[in-house]
Amino acid sequence: MSFGPVSDAELRERVHRVRLVAFDFDGVFTDNTVLVSDDGRESVRCWRGDGIGLRKLERAGIGIVILSTEPNPVVAQRATKLRVRCQQGLEDKLGVLEALALEAGVGLDAIAYVGNDVNDRTCLEAVGLPIVVADAHPDVASLAAYRTRTPGGRGAVREVCDLFEQILQGPS
Amino acid sequence: MSFGPVSDAELRERVHRVRLVAFDFDGVFTDNTVLVSDDGRESVRCWRGDGIGLRKLERAGIGIVILSTEPNPVVAQRATKLRVRCQQGLEDKLGVLEALALEAGVGLDAIAYVGNDVNDRTCLEAVGLPIVVADAHPDVASLAAYRTRTPGGRGAVREVCDLFEQILQGPS
Amino acid sequence: MSFGPVSDAELRERVHRVRLVAFDFDGVFTDNTVLVSDDGRESVRCWRGDGIGLRKLERAGIGIVILSTEPNPVVAQRATKLRVRCQQGLEDKLGVLEALALEAGVGLDAIAYVGNDVNDRTCLEAVGLPIVVADAHPDVASLAAYRTRTPGGRGAVREVCDLFEQILQGPS
Amino acid sequence: MSFGPVSDAELRERVHRVRLVAFDFDGVFTDNTVLVSDDGRESVRCWRGDGIGLRKLERAGIGIVILSTEPNPVVAQRATKLRVRCQQGLEDKLGVLEALALEAGVGLDAIAYVGNDVNDRTCLEAVGLPIVVADAHPDVASLAAYRTRTPGGRGAVREVCDLFEQILQGPS
Repeated sequence: MSFGPVSDAELRERVHRVRLVAFDFDGVFTDNTVLVSDDGRESVRCWRGDGIGLRKLERAGIGIVILSTEPNPVVAQRATKLRVRCQQGLEDKLGVLEALALEAGVGLDAIAYVGNDVNDRTCLEAVGLPIVVADAHPDVASLAAYRTRTPGGRGAVREVCDLFEQILQGPS
Repeated sequence: MSFGPVSDAELRERVHRVRLVAFDFDGVFTDNTVLVSDDGRESVRCWRGDGIGLRKLERAGIGIVILSTEPNPVVAQRATKLRVRCQQGLEDKLGVLEALALEAGVGLDAIAYVGNDVNDRTCLEAVGLPIVVADAHPDVASLAAYRTRTPGGRGAVREVCDLFEQILQGPS
Repeated sequence: MSFGPVSDAELRERVHRVRLVAFDFDGVFTDNTVLVSDDGRESVRCWRGDGIGLRKLERAGIGIVILSTEPNPVVAQRATKLRVRCQQGLEDKLGVLEALALEAGVGLDAIAYVGNDVNDRTCLEAVGLPIVVADAHPDVASLAAYRTRTPGGRGAVREVCDLFEQILQGPS
Repeated sequence: MSFGPVSDAELRERVHRVRLVAFDFDGVFTDNTVLVSDDGRESVRCWRGDGIGLRKLERAGIGIVILSTEPNPVVAQRATKLRVRCQQGLEDKLGVLEALALEAGVGLDAIAYVGNDVNDRTCLEAVGLPIVVADAHPDVASLAAYRTRTPGGRGAVREVCDLFEQILQGPS
């Protein structure tokens, strides 16, 4: 729907339309690294400030969901801690997004999607407010209406939530 | 009490008044990231040089306490290792600060508070010497009388302690 | 075979000849750090985006192997997760490379090798397409026909795969 | 013995005199951070390239020892892996250094010491070749005859070993 950065006025308008923010997990909630231990455990590195941001979205009545391609216990662990709904092991993220839009009784233009890599492409191309993190893969960076200043796992989720708060509290 | 940076002379005067330094944990003792493992364990990243700094404050007869909003075993683990008092799971940090001031028989102007995010706002606004770390959230950065040059979990706690040592050993 | 960077045309030609890409592990799939726990466990830090890249090589019909000097369970764990063949505890990497070339019925000029340190020297000097990561040790940096822009464990493997995709999809 | 950087010629002369290199652990073999888990485990972040460097020192017939103030299992774990002698829980590092010099039948001028913080001060002031890492605490940085370009845990140990190799292989 959007291809490339938009004006401030356009960004404000799109934010006001959003009823649901869908986040990719790796590279968005994390810095896209994974710690692998010699007994096969995996750990990811998240940002403590994200929780404060997600509560802001909730207070504004905006839905939140984490969509992850890879099925991984670590996604569920983090989602539980942040008290956010999550779906993982998804072959077809866009199909899930469409189902969520239907469930909420809104169109894809009322959805914001935050991603970082090529497996987010179809979602970024379909939603009303496509967002990528500062350190997104070059192949998707150009698809975003908004690109965060902070990298994934180092403030990007919080920055998106702060942006919503700032715009929704300002003149509409 | 303070809103924004102060002069060197003013900073020295405030440091000399301080009887207790209260530290936030995440983002101050840590780099504000959290490592989440696939079995739900959490780990945080701290700075080895902080211990040397805290011993300096003790030798100067200044009290130390860690105040954390989130109840988390990792805070207690680190506090024990550093031999520092800690209170966590705090809804109302400022209330605790006031109780600590009363217990020590001093006013809030004799307290320094070191924070990094909006849940530190009321404390930063109330104490005599509000300090934020180099990478504090923009919404609180302006509240500090002193902002460290080093980020949280990478020298910020040590820098605060070094600052106290330097000022208390100089001419008062 | 190559000593130093090559022209774009030469690079394209060499990429087209490659039938097998051999990767060193530490410093290439990882950021060359190792986390050591107080009970002796080791963990390494990898990049989530590498898997997407490796699938690109496979789709292009190019073989993939990880060769590690040090025998370490963590290499096997990561290789299994990425579904890539791996050999470790290798005293003589070049001998293994030669055996792999023989097995594939190609010469060493049909092999790309990606390394980061002096124990990769003989392989880098022998293959048709020697590659080093952005943060390779100075003593081997000059041996590469291509040096990645991204560091090991922070995009280097993915960048190599993207490079192959880009060249193989373009005019030959 | 030395206070501040020395000329290239002086550095070469001092390196040629060295029979033993003593390393501090935290901040030298590590990046000075510590990962603290919610069950109290500690992990530190080391550099894979250090092992290659230490073997160079051994081949040159130079002794190696790790001296750590804090008693910590993680130091022993890393030292064992690197096959390097280590002593920890040391109140008086300089006393240990003197005993090691006596045992080796050399003076303190034949010892290099690599440190990063104020608890390394007395050793840095006493030895023939005091070295600090790139990110050493300002209070000791000025004591070094050589300061590494790479930070602790990110190449500093390796750089010291490479420096010795380069000087010992050149004209004496």
